[in-house]
Amino acid sequence: MKIALIGFGTVGQELGKILLNRRDKLKKEFNYQPQIVAIGDSQGTINNPNGIDIKKALKTKEEKGSIVHGNWNKGMDVDYDVLVECTPTNIKDGEPGLTNIKTALKQGKDVVTSNKGPLALEWEQLMKTAKQNNAALKFEACVGGAMPIINLANEVLAGNQIKSIRGILNGTCNYILTRMTAEGLPYNHVLSEAQDLGIAETDPTYDVEGIDTALKVVIIANSVMNLNKTYDDVKLEGITGITPEALELAKKDNKEIKLIGEINNNQLQVAPKMVSKDHPIAVNGTLNVASVKADLAGEITVTGKGAGGKETASSILSDLVSIWRNNKH
Amino acid sequence: MKIALIGFGTVGQELGKILLNRRDKLKKEFNYQPQIVAIGDSQGTINNPNGIDIKKALKTKEEKGSIVHGNWNKGMDVDYDVLVECTPTNIKDGEPGLTNIKTALKQGKDVVTSNKGPLALEWEQLMKTAKQNNAALKFEACVGGAMPIINLANEVLAGNQIKSIRGILNGTCNYILTRMTAEGLPYNHVLSEAQDLGIAETDPTYDVEGIDTALKVVIIANSVMNLNKTYDDVKLEGITGITPEALELAKKDNKEIKLIGEINNNQLQVAPKMVSKDHPIAVNGTLNVASVKADLAGEITVTGKGAGGKETASSILSDLVSIWRNNKH
Repeated sequence: MKIALIGFGTVGQELGKILLNRRDKLKKEFNYQPQIVAIGDSQGTINNPNGIDIKKALKTKEEKGSIVHGNWNKGMDVDYDVLVECTPTNIKDGEPGLTNIKTALKQGKDVVTSNKGPLALEWEQLMKTAKQNNAALKFEACVGGAMPIINLANEVLAGNQIKSIRGILNGTCNYILTRMTAEGLPYNHVLSEAQDLGIAETDPTYDVEGIDTALKVVIIANSVMNLNKTYDDVKLEGITGITPEALELAKKDNKEIKLIGEINNNQLQVAPKMVSKDHPIAVNGTLNVASVKADLAGEITVTGKGAGGKETASSILSDLVSIWRNNKH
Repeated sequence: MKIALIGFGTVGQELGKILLNRRDKLKKEFNYQPQIVAIGDSQGTINNPNGIDIKKALKTKEEKGSIVHGNWNKGMDVDYDVLVECTPTNIKDGEPGLTNIKTALKQGKDVVTSNKGPLALEWEQLMKTAKQNNAALKFEACVGGAMPIINLANEVLAGNQIKSIRGILNGTCNYILTRMTAEGLPYNHVLSEAQDLGIAETDPTYDVEGIDTALKVVIIANSVMNLNKTYDDVKLEGITGITPEALELAKKDNKEIKLIGEINNNQLQVAPKMVSKDHPIAVNGTLNVASVKADLAGEITVTGKGAGGKETASSILSDLVSIWRNNKH
């Protein structure tokens, strides 16, 4: 399997390391021997039809800030089987991920992505393009990092009717609310602390206003429940208005307030909600969690690390192995 | 896909109902149209090469206590593709499940089972027979009812190194410990209550001594971590010695005592252990839970209903769909 990797930030670099370091394991367990034949970052693209020297690419990126350096062969003009798209999420128009993904699918290439924007904005069009060109489009890494909600629902609950899904899908919000609850501290104080720790961004809007959660809810709704929703369909409220007093009141009732993304009765919602401390969904810190209600299996809850380069790259790897196992190449 | 179903108790009957009631859904979603061509219970076997009338079989079983009744065509002498083995677990010699499964595999038939005995006693031999005859052997229903730990670890964590697994794998024990903790009641009192509610058996040994948990630990160790263990390899301690005082002490330390099945450093253990209330593994009531530590994905925890006919049949269905998707027929 020849891979073109676009986006060589934290996730892309981790994927490179993983494919390099477990070459023997992947060959032994799955007879899977992927090669990265192209890498693109914001400065340009390099390629090698016989497989890029990943160690050299990682070193160049680290030392020079871009893989495009020196006399390496440049450009994307190389034959590949699977596009791995790891450029940053852009909620306005989905670019550059949207064009990258569309272009690959139209050529019948399979795509694995960690980029939420294109899927949350143009789900129907992308799925149609994939189907028309007999290409796979996989995106476990988009939702909850290493928490495997998409593949869990589609593979393990096959044959079930999924009735509703709710979850804590943003680790930054969960961290802030957990700390506010534990310490009785106000929002702004804990936000600063989270920013110091690198858990919240300098501009935290995308997380704390619930935008990131909303994008994930759209992707889950479409992929697991066969809806056809976009970002604008989500009723959205963030966590900036929550006070220590509200959290304290909930605590007295054996409850916690969490930012919950929910799909129920065809409605998509992101809002702070009370959850019982005794329910498996009440996880703390930066953890993510999703709870699926299915007609046969009942309620199944899955918890895992919602972010991190290695964890996200692990989800990309499982999608790649899945494509490989389905004998697409 | 022609199915031979042996064992027509709660789980077998639920599977029959499910295949009957969601005929259209399975056809639409997976182009999957299974037929049950033979059913066996403790009284004998019926068959119909063109598909048994499931509604009639369920009615006969309900009214007469066995499907073998009247002038239905008897015997197992019918062509089939997949054996679904749902006879009760027998920890002594694995029979009759062991012979049923072996016979089918030797003929190159795929097998889906909810029977823990054969897998915990003769793992290596069964896997070898399956491989030699190019047959699938699937068993998600053996561990934790609807809690999808086996397929989760094997499919979703593909490419990861699994470092350790621990879980609460028996709903009866979890119910007893949860009630003892909540009410400060002694073991015998809560056991009687659980027996009245049908949560514990009249002879509770199999559950409360940790035997059931141990069987599940063996199956997880072998299937997920590629070990080759049997029931005798498990260091085993049940919950009968736990006092309300011990539970109270744990509670004061923000901990709970749970019967934990664990695989770590090649060692298999079942014993009461303290777990932090804040960890996702600390689930209550009859819930089951398993937590997997993987080198890339980190720790992933999955919670679900550990028992129940419908939930167990749901796991069998997901195994059947998985066999179907892999184009074995």
